[in-house]
Amino acid sequence: MSQHRSARAAVFSAGSWGTAVAKILADAGTDVIVHARRDEIADAINTVHRNPGYFPDVELPVSLAATTDPAAALHRADYLVLSIPAQSLRTNLALWTPHIGPDTVIVSLMKGIELCSGQLASQVITEVTGVSADRVAVLSGPNLAREIMDGEPAAATVACPDEAAARRFQQACRTPYFRPYTSTDIIGCELGGAVKNVIALAVGIASGMGLGDNASAMLITRGLAETTRLAVAMGAQPATLAGLAGLGDLVATCSSPLSRNRSFFGTVNRSALARSRW
Amino acid sequence: MSQHRSARAAVFSAGSWGTAVAKILADAGTDVIVHARRDEIADAINTVHRNPGYFPDVELPVSLAATTDPAAALHRADYLVLSIPAQSLRTNLALWTPHIGPDTVIVSLMKGIELCSGQLASQVITEVTGVSADRVAVLSGPNLAREIMDGEPAAATVACPDEAAARRFQQACRTPYFRPYTSTDIIGCELGGAVKNVIALAVGIASGMGLGDNASAMLITRGLAETTRLAVAMGAQPATLAGLAGLGDLVATCSSPLSRNRSFFGTVNRSALARSRW
Repeated sequence: MSQHRSARAAVFSAGSWGTAVAKILADAGTDVIVHARRDEIADAINTVHRNPGYFPDVELPVSLAATTDPAAALHRADYLVLSIPAQSLRTNLALWTPHIGPDTVIVSLMKGIELCSGQLASQVITEVTGVSADRVAVLSGPNLAREIMDGEPAAATVACPDEAAARRFQQACRTPYFRPYTSTDIIGCELGGAVKNVIALAVGIASGMGLGDNASAMLITRGLAETTRLAVAMGAQPATLAGLAGLGDLVATCSSPLSRNRSFFGTVNRSALARSRW
Repeated sequence: MSQHRSARAAVFSAGSWGTAVAKILADAGTDVIVHARRDEIADAINTVHRNPGYFPDVELPVSLAATTDPAAALHRADYLVLSIPAQSLRTNLALWTPHIGPDTVIVSLMKGIELCSGQLASQVITEVTGVSADRVAVLSGPNLAREIMDGEPAAATVACPDEAAARRFQQACRTPYFRPYTSTDIIGCELGGAVKNVIALAVGIASGMGLGDNASAMLITRGLAETTRLAVAMGAQPATLAGLAGLGDLVATCSSPLSRNRSFFGTVNRSALARSRW
């Protein structure tokens, strides 16, 4: 990356969190181009500076551009920022790989595990693209997209085995309302983000049964202790799970009415669960 | 303690959390006597098995007795369980010390720091009573008393430098609805319980300003990171702060409408804070 131009990020794709991170990057002064699958989304972002699929009420930075052409999006990109469903990552990434530059750092926003392989997103990325592990990073934290789009303050962790790369991406996404910290523990960050959804389901079940804050706090704490043991066995550092990408993301997911996993059982099965007294 | 009789606990005094822990101990099969300051409270507990000062709606175990006589309460007590305001601990404990048996383990339920000395409750206890540090324990966790009285599930940490003593008290307060874990890190447990109140005030302020779950999770996570650094400097283990007496208590306090610290600014200063846009 030259010292004389802004960093350039290609965000794939224009979903809820992808749009929010594209806004953060643009607000941080990074040149951002969003890859949208549908023409009408790309056109709307380029012309009326809104994403009609998500957050039609929020005006996006005018510097934020969009395209449906992966090659155009990836041209001279310092960062490929990936926010697509975990189960379609492998297939889509294989299509985009020929357009990824030799120095592009791939940043995963994904919080999930590939069902067919049991792999984390960073592992799928290195396997499919062949890029070295120190060119793969993760951005993860307690970041409900709706609140970010409303400009409310939030923080997150940027993890990359190459600490200098983590620091560069930290600069590329630092704004007055978004505070990124850095880490080299990519496994701990990714696993925290993926496993927290399981704990949030349990907390949602407890809440749906009418149990209170003691029970939720117990599930969160002991659930994070279990997650930490799993993460350490996979090579992570325990402190990572106590950080924004672990504890922070878990707490936000378990607290928020905006979280789908937290509310899944609460809304769908509340009456059935209430009948079965613990 | 003989193998042939139940453990015996004296709970000082009959406040909200003292009453809840007395109920837990009685439900666990421990002989419990509560020290109440006022005759009418002791009489009500002994005769109608209710505490009219707190939870008048909850029937207490019939085995739970009360007295206003500290000497009678402490007679042959295996445990002196202390739940009194942190700032009156030193004065009250000095009065009770002559009645404390040579093998009695003192269990603090208190979450606070003595203002005049900066000491934690366990430090005040060893200083005032002269008992050795391995006879002082702490019970701490995400334990809103109202939920405990309603029989909802909860967990906590019993910490004592003497691991065997921690395990004995764990047995003395284990019930189907209350799950105690053990630790030897008394400083970590106490500091987590005390400092969490400061973080809960900050979270309450953020909430009163209309900020969302990202901001709360950030304050909780980074606040706990600060607390952990402080605790480690004071000799605690970092893992303790990630446990029930640290993270767990913090999450329950910051989540619950029952928590006074969480709601303090939200109720008192909401309109004033809303005027000052962050």
